[in-house]
Amino acid sequence: MSQSRLSELTWHEVRRAGEDAVALLPIGSQEQHAAHLPMGTDTLLVEEVVDRALRILAQEASGPDVVRLPVLPYGHSPHHLFAAAVSLSAATLGAVLEEVLDSLVTSGYRRVMVVNGHGGNDEIMRLAVKRFALRSEVTVAACSYWNLTTGDDDAGRPDVTPGHAGWFETSLMLAAHPGLVRTPVPARTTVEPPPLFDRPPYPGLTVERHGEWARVGGATDDPSGADGVPGEQLLQDRARGLAHAIAAFDAATR
Amino acid sequence: MSQSRLSELTWHEVRRAGEDAVALLPIGSQEQHAAHLPMGTDTLLVEEVVDRALRILAQEASGPDVVRLPVLPYGHSPHHLFAAAVSLSAATLGAVLEEVLDSLVTSGYRRVMVVNGHGGNDEIMRLAVKRFALRSEVTVAACSYWNLTTGDDDAGRPDVTPGHAGWFETSLMLAAHPGLVRTPVPARTTVEPPPLFDRPPYPGLTVERHGEWARVGGATDDPSGADGVPGEQLLQDRARGLAHAIAAFDAATR
Amino acid sequence: MSQSRLSELTWHEVRRAGEDAVALLPIGSQEQHAAHLPMGTDTLLVEEVVDRALRILAQEASGPDVVRLPVLPYGHSPHHLFAAAVSLSAATLGAVLEEVLDSLVTSGYRRVMVVNGHGGNDEIMRLAVKRFALRSEVTVAACSYWNLTTGDDDAGRPDVTPGHAGWFETSLMLAAHPGLVRTPVPARTTVEPPPLFDRPPYPGLTVERHGEWARVGGATDDPSGADGVPGEQLLQDRARGLAHAIAAFDAATR
Amino acid sequence: MSQSRLSELTWHEVRRAGEDAVALLPIGSQEQHAAHLPMGTDTLLVEEVVDRALRILAQEASGPDVVRLPVLPYGHSPHHLFAAAVSLSAATLGAVLEEVLDSLVTSGYRRVMVVNGHGGNDEIMRLAVKRFALRSEVTVAACSYWNLTTGDDDAGRPDVTPGHAGWFETSLMLAAHPGLVRTPVPARTTVEPPPLFDRPPYPGLTVERHGEWARVGGATDDPSGADGVPGEQLLQDRARGLAHAIAAFDAATR
Amino acid sequence: MSQSRLSELTWHEVRRAGEDAVALLPIGSQEQHAAHLPMGTDTLLVEEVVDRALRILAQEASGPDVVRLPVLPYGHSPHHLFAAAVSLSAATLGAVLEEVLDSLVTSGYRRVMVVNGHGGNDEIMRLAVKRFALRSEVTVAACSYWNLTTGDDDAGRPDVTPGHAGWFETSLMLAAHPGLVRTPVPARTTVEPPPLFDRPPYPGLTVERHGEWARVGGATDDPSGADGVPGEQLLQDRARGLAHAIAAFDAATR
Amino acid sequence: MSQSRLSELTWHEVRRAGEDAVALLPIGSQEQHAAHLPMGTDTLLVEEVVDRALRILAQEASGPDVVRLPVLPYGHSPHHLFAAAVSLSAATLGAVLEEVLDSLVTSGYRRVMVVNGHGGNDEIMRLAVKRFALRSEVTVAACSYWNLTTGDDDAGRPDVTPGHAGWFETSLMLAAHPGLVRTPVPARTTVEPPPLFDRPPYPGLTVERHGEWARVGGATDDPSGADGVPGEQLLQDRARGLAHAIAAFDAATR
Repeated sequence: MSQSRLSELTWHEVRRAGEDAVALLPIGSQEQHAAHLPMGTDTLLVEEVVDRALRILAQEASGPDVVRLPVLPYGHSPHHLFAAAVSLSAATLGAVLEEVLDSLVTSGYRRVMVVNGHGGNDEIMRLAVKRFALRSEVTVAACSYWNLTTGDDDAGRPDVTPGHAGWFETSLMLAAHPGLVRTPVPARTTVEPPPLFDRPPYPGLTVERHGEWARVGGATDDPSGADGVPGEQLLQDRARGLAHAIAAFDAATR
Repeated sequence: MSQSRLSELTWHEVRRAGEDAVALLPIGSQEQHAAHLPMGTDTLLVEEVVDRALRILAQEASGPDVVRLPVLPYGHSPHHLFAAAVSLSAATLGAVLEEVLDSLVTSGYRRVMVVNGHGGNDEIMRLAVKRFALRSEVTVAACSYWNLTTGDDDAGRPDVTPGHAGWFETSLMLAAHPGLVRTPVPARTTVEPPPLFDRPPYPGLTVERHGEWARVGGATDDPSGADGVPGEQLLQDRARGLAHAIAAFDAATR
Repeated sequence: MSQSRLSELTWHEVRRAGEDAVALLPIGSQEQHAAHLPMGTDTLLVEEVVDRALRILAQEASGPDVVRLPVLPYGHSPHHLFAAAVSLSAATLGAVLEEVLDSLVTSGYRRVMVVNGHGGNDEIMRLAVKRFALRSEVTVAACSYWNLTTGDDDAGRPDVTPGHAGWFETSLMLAAHPGLVRTPVPARTTVEPPPLFDRPPYPGLTVERHGEWARVGGATDDPSGADGVPGEQLLQDRARGLAHAIAAFDAATR
Repeated sequence: MSQSRLSELTWHEVRRAGEDAVALLPIGSQEQHAAHLPMGTDTLLVEEVVDRALRILAQEASGPDVVRLPVLPYGHSPHHLFAAAVSLSAATLGAVLEEVLDSLVTSGYRRVMVVNGHGGNDEIMRLAVKRFALRSEVTVAACSYWNLTTGDDDAGRPDVTPGHAGWFETSLMLAAHPGLVRTPVPARTTVEPPPLFDRPPYPGLTVERHGEWARVGGATDDPSGADGVPGEQLLQDRARGLAHAIAAFDAATR
Repeated sequence: MSQSRLSELTWHEVRRAGEDAVALLPIGSQEQHAAHLPMGTDTLLVEEVVDRALRILAQEASGPDVVRLPVLPYGHSPHHLFAAAVSLSAATLGAVLEEVLDSLVTSGYRRVMVVNGHGGNDEIMRLAVKRFALRSEVTVAACSYWNLTTGDDDAGRPDVTPGHAGWFETSLMLAAHPGLVRTPVPARTTVEPPPLFDRPPYPGLTVERHGEWARVGGATDDPSGADGVPGEQLLQDRARGLAHAIAAFDAATR
Repeated sequence: MSQSRLSELTWHEVRRAGEDAVALLPIGSQEQHAAHLPMGTDTLLVEEVVDRALRILAQEASGPDVVRLPVLPYGHSPHHLFAAAVSLSAATLGAVLEEVLDSLVTSGYRRVMVVNGHGGNDEIMRLAVKRFALRSEVTVAACSYWNLTTGDDDAGRPDVTPGHAGWFETSLMLAAHPGLVRTPVPARTTVEPPPLFDRPPYPGLTVERHGEWARVGGATDDPSGADGVPGEQLLQDRARGLAHAIAAFDAATR
């Protein structure tokens, strides 16, 4: 079992690793996260989860070979441009993902995993990996880090996970990058009605209303009770979940 | 409360209706559905659910105004081209949806609902409605019909809903279009391992493997036990679910 | 000789039919047709002509095998957006046609016919079939239904055929869908000068002036004298023309 | 009345002329024209017709102001790539036309005429001028030179006009550029069946068959009887036709 | 050694020449060149340099075979649209170049040279030839005519070469097309600060400021001292430089 | 004077900084760098130069405000895919740059600088900043780090600067990241003829030959004499050059 960063390998090493390794691509965003979290929150958290997961796997004798690609720090955040974001369009982010994936095949990789830190990237990532597996003889996995759990975490609050700039993300940032959280975390004034995209009028509906993010102030739930202690638990639970997921993906596709 | 078909209205009527009505766009697919179901299964079922939902709403005095657009009979089915499909690419289907939605705004509509009958359209539909609500002053909803339920249906089997050409779709077709189901429905030979896209190695992972649909024979679960009696219940439950969803969307956005 | 609808076939049947059958794709539009005809006029008429033509062919022992695709109900109508239309851009409609045609080749079809009901689709349809025949080993035909005649129809008025929402289309709709024609059909006030796109200043010129459709009120000639009796003759003549054309195409390309 | 070439004007002159003048854009092709005509035939002929038409108009005291743009020497000829062509795709040629037209509006032009020398450009030119007139407050005309006649030409043979590299084009080249015609013009062996694209199996059908241009040897009719005397008459008739068309367009849109 | 124009060759000749010849594509622009030079300046000058270079090579017994393509008279000039230009977008010009180059490969050419007359085309031309050499087995050269010198020209002023509508271009036009230069050439009022794109604040920086071309009046340096005598020397030096470059390219790639 | 990282700022801080600060975007690549340098060499070096330049500026009381964006770790490297690269197409990289730049304008930035570490990005970066300054009221600078010098560096060898994976880059990596250089650095076998893209047959020509990078083994000059001592000098010289350039850009555009 080996772990390495693609940016630090020579091309011969990249090629050799491609025969067995899972290539792992983290993707994030740069976008507003209310008044207390930094623009890079999604990128910082996905990198933190990946770091921890790889550290967990490194302790196992028979863990999978992993080549980690540089994080893509820019994502699809047009809904946050009203309040500062650096956003790629869906078409451009889709093209970036497809071209990165195609490059990996050209270098001999047959197994790739994309680990996402930003909700707005989700559909684009799914479309990209589906197209990829149709045109190349590969197996590819995609996930958003908050969905990977071990199932035995007690600290969570599913009703506000992951949300945006609320209790969940703030707690994780207090655990991972406390210095980047502006404290005390301000309470979010209750907004009525709650955001339609977060509380659709009927289960199973996706609803989008023009101007809704601005109307609710850019966050989905109150972060003021966030706490680094459950944050640490939640983070570690995702890291273990990701470690298990990588190992399971490796086992299923070896 | 009024219901009409856009194709039967004059343009003055289309404009006038646009002030209050919800425009409803059904979208489907033409793709292989194993050896016993027709290519148009997804389109036929979404139209059936919409027909029934509108009939339910028509009985209510204060139901929402709805203008129904012609169903888009072609969807995104590249994964079924190996065994016959008429498929639009993701970019093209996305463009079709965006241009239909934009046309509606130009004609004065401010509330639109897209009702989908094919899993492969899901991400594209979501991206389209998100972009739409960012560039126009509208509220837009999207759903796949099988996700809309009343919650009190006893007939269902969540483990194989909706699946593809399996127990669920076959049962619904036996209820809605029995003449188009080739009987006796052949049993599906068990495939090992089960399709990765349907049974990911770890919860939360989306996994796509090249050639997987062909390997598992184009269906996800055994349709041979399908039955029109639960099919009718399931179909009617989705119709009631959609009727409730339309009414709730109307109420939330009036 | 066999006729079927692609949406009702299983994929095995679609494949088998592809060896010999002509795939037939009707395309229409949703656009303003003055104050007395419905938005779906072009789609309704092309479907009516196709229905009748296939019925005529069905009576012949040795007629061609035909697999009919679902009509594409949306066309290219940007010039009617000023007064309500659901319009695809030229690029998008072109992509839809190309991808539908490409799908048919993938499923084994080698002979395709596109039957059009809307003038604004004409150039896009021609470009699509030309490109198709360059990249695939197929023979493909394209036509607009009003151009297919038997040559012995006495009822016609070539000066206003097909026009838009005028005498010709109104007469056909009175024959095919009288319930959808708002009567009495209002007379069109004479507009001076007549629309440049319809009456170019020199023969052989195509002329387009900004705002011309709005200036002339959305129709090209006076529909008030329209009559279902000649309408029936004209419609039946096109149906016979299309039946002959399908048979001739089949014979020339078998 | 004034005539000038855009490439020879200063920008102030271009702007000033734009208030009243018709901008005239010739477009051609570079493609195989059998063994006796040069690749630039379409471009050379459209330029010859434009030259002559402007000379005719120059003799009239009250002729229209015309600013002539450089000919676009490359057209859409994918069907001739099998035997040498320099071809733009439909999308690219469409973009070139749209951007040239848009530039003219930016410089103040409100009346534009596109004069085409190559059949393969026809649909693309039509789409481009339609889109142009929808997005800008302009009036725009498009034509192919062979369609503009005075109606009193005795020399023509409509059955082979314009054809490709046959009697018509060869006769015109013998009149306009005799030194570029390889003589004696070889007779074209009769090909059976005749090309489907030129002799559709039923009137009103457009038919394209893969490989048809190669099968029939790249020309549509026998050029061996071509003659510069009728060629001169035909050419002059088109020049007069174009002169009349320019004047009529000017009068209708002044 | 042979020289010919592609537009005057038959397709058999084009094919035959492709085995040995260098295909030469000149590209220019139509854009404002201050109040004294014509819109076509860049196109006229690149054609003049090519004409002269080919004449020089024609006198050599063993010069390279060259097939000259029609000049592309339209370039990428969005920065001059404020004062009249006919401009293609970067994407469109790139597509035109790629499709022209691809056509040449299809016709058997393996060596191509693009000769540019307009600074704004530079990056697009470079990208196009790089892509071309990656996807086809060709060798391709690109240059802007002003960069090709013999090294022994005394007449030049490197500080204002090529500039835009200044001393260099005006001098060349006075030599090549004196009748198209409006004289006396007006002096350019000194603009302070000088244009940022021409005088970046630090060496090695490319700097673009919105509105800068309009602020400095559309020219980069004072043309009033331009003179046809050094103009002739400079022009002939570039012609000799291009002749040498063609010969050297031929020798290196034969 | 302030310096910050966009990813660590809240959105309010990003907005506030936008009024005065220069936004600085580093871009790199992941591509083969022979057998002794890592894939991320270009990214690592541009980040090193930016780090050092900002440290130099930080020591000045009146230095410019700078907001540094996350490096884009992927560039345009199709010519290195033969031997491992993760490459974006020119169209995609162009879109990424344009959308990042557009996002910055939306957030209030009016001054942006792009600092490049990879030769293959050059034309795309230039086109992107030109387009940006045409459509937005901004001033934007672009540079490649190796071109920014103080002019008083004695350590350089202009003949091999920057080259690819040769003396220059290896020396800089020995200074900045010695642990990532595989030593002893192998000598590069002399290749005859030298790569055409690096040694064009005539000055002023850009020449690209298919397969040239593979033929010469992926590097442009012999790295075996590389040395961290001149590497440190060269690196520091570029850092000082960039610091001066940022200050000069700030002064010229304040």
